[in-house]
Amino acid sequence: MLRLLLRGGKPALTVTRSFHSTHIARMEKHVAVVLSGCGVYDGTEIHEASAVLVHLSRGGASVNMFAPNIDQMHVVNHLKGAPSEESRNVLVESARLARGNIQDLSKLSVKEHDAIIFPGGFGAAKNLCSWAVEGKDCSVNEQVKSVLQAFHGEGKPIGLCCISPVLAAKVFPGCEVTVGIEKDDKYPDTTDTATAINQLGCKHVSKSVAESHVDEKNKLVTTSAFMCNAKIHEIFDGIGSMVQGVLKLA
Amino acid sequence: MLRLLLRGGKPALTVTRSFHSTHIARMEKHVAVVLSGCGVYDGTEIHEASAVLVHLSRGGASVNMFAPNIDQMHVVNHLKGAPSEESRNVLVESARLARGNIQDLSKLSVKEHDAIIFPGGFGAAKNLCSWAVEGKDCSVNEQVKSVLQAFHGEGKPIGLCCISPVLAAKVFPGCEVTVGIEKDDKYPDTTDTATAINQLGCKHVSKSVAESHVDEKNKLVTTSAFMCNAKIHEIFDGIGSMVQGVLKLA
Repeated sequence: MLRLLLRGGKPALTVTRSFHSTHIARMEKHVAVVLSGCGVYDGTEIHEASAVLVHLSRGGASVNMFAPNIDQMHVVNHLKGAPSEESRNVLVESARLARGNIQDLSKLSVKEHDAIIFPGGFGAAKNLCSWAVEGKDCSVNEQVKSVLQAFHGEGKPIGLCCISPVLAAKVFPGCEVTVGIEKDDKYPDTTDTATAINQLGCKHVSKSVAESHVDEKNKLVTTSAFMCNAKIHEIFDGIGSMVQGVLKLA
Repeated sequence: MLRLLLRGGKPALTVTRSFHSTHIARMEKHVAVVLSGCGVYDGTEIHEASAVLVHLSRGGASVNMFAPNIDQMHVVNHLKGAPSEESRNVLVESARLARGNIQDLSKLSVKEHDAIIFPGGFGAAKNLCSWAVEGKDCSVNEQVKSVLQAFHGEGKPIGLCCISPVLAAKVFPGCEVTVGIEKDDKYPDTTDTATAINQLGCKHVSKSVAESHVDEKNKLVTTSAFMCNAKIHEIFDGIGSMVQGVLKLA
């Protein structure tokens, strides 16, 4: 019962181009989504990932999901809000969000994708880099760094939300990102995060949860998502803005 | 960093009613959402739960989440699609979906809520009842049964999706539900599930993934969600139809 494949978008509608034709070739975009576990405190923020998938699907994109095959930094009991003694694997837990349809990040082929998106959650700052512990002095997982550099090098857009934009700030000095609105109580951690981003030589741009910021030069699209104490449908819509920005650049 | 409360809807807008007034009291609806873990194979289907929360938030409802404080029937490694040796607690894992803001199902007060919604996933058929193992001869968790009967007894609406409608079929003989379209390849498990529902003395009504079915008499609103091999945004929209139906009846 309950067959379980997450279907990722429409078949490509390709129209033969010819000179003097007004036909537009509408190609399906292939987007990689990189997860970092399953649960806001030690993995991917679940609702951010789900919103990314819904908006990509509505935008006609096909999706492949990836996660690094490594242990989580730790496991948090989300009921207590405290670490537990367990050990869990980032790829195995991410598979919960992907309904089993996920691959080791080492298998990600940049050539086969038009864009890449990193949802947020503490997993991005604990498992994909060490920002949660070391802030701007963090290190970025080597696979993650190499994937980011490869998409950037090919001029393919990168979408990030919540705390994930710090990955771009760390890997692409001089880039522009948003993690919300500075000095605004609705964004309690944005000011400190923005300060660290600026100290890395990047530029933090204040944007509301409904908006995304596009760094045209670096093809980065970012939105604050759960960095804002917003209603979940507002976060959903802001992620929609980010996904649409990514698909437009792809 | 990253403050984590899931905010659930707008403050109530109450307008004083008076005779000869055309004012309408627009009251915030309080909706309970019951989870069964976190991951389609052994818990709540993540994207169904997230869609329920987004649509409730957009509909102006406030949400409280609940799950039974029991062990999962088993733990499935979602990467391999096979059971693992671990043991996990339904309430603790559901807290991942609820960003920590969840209570033991035993604490659910029917009086404090206007409606209740059960997302699907195997957890509904493994942890909330034993349908996954025993089909129509299953037993329903006593707390779940008592909560369902209490909402039904008070005439408060109940929303269910995916495989969760079997809970209603088991507890409310004679009710009407949908789990998709019978004899349609896009709904591979609907025919068998519908047959079992009919054998319980209930009526299965074929509805597409975009639709929900309303049993007005029993105030049940059901939709097929991932019982259909549909694109994720179509499932999201079908769940929206179910949530709107529930809020309309509340």
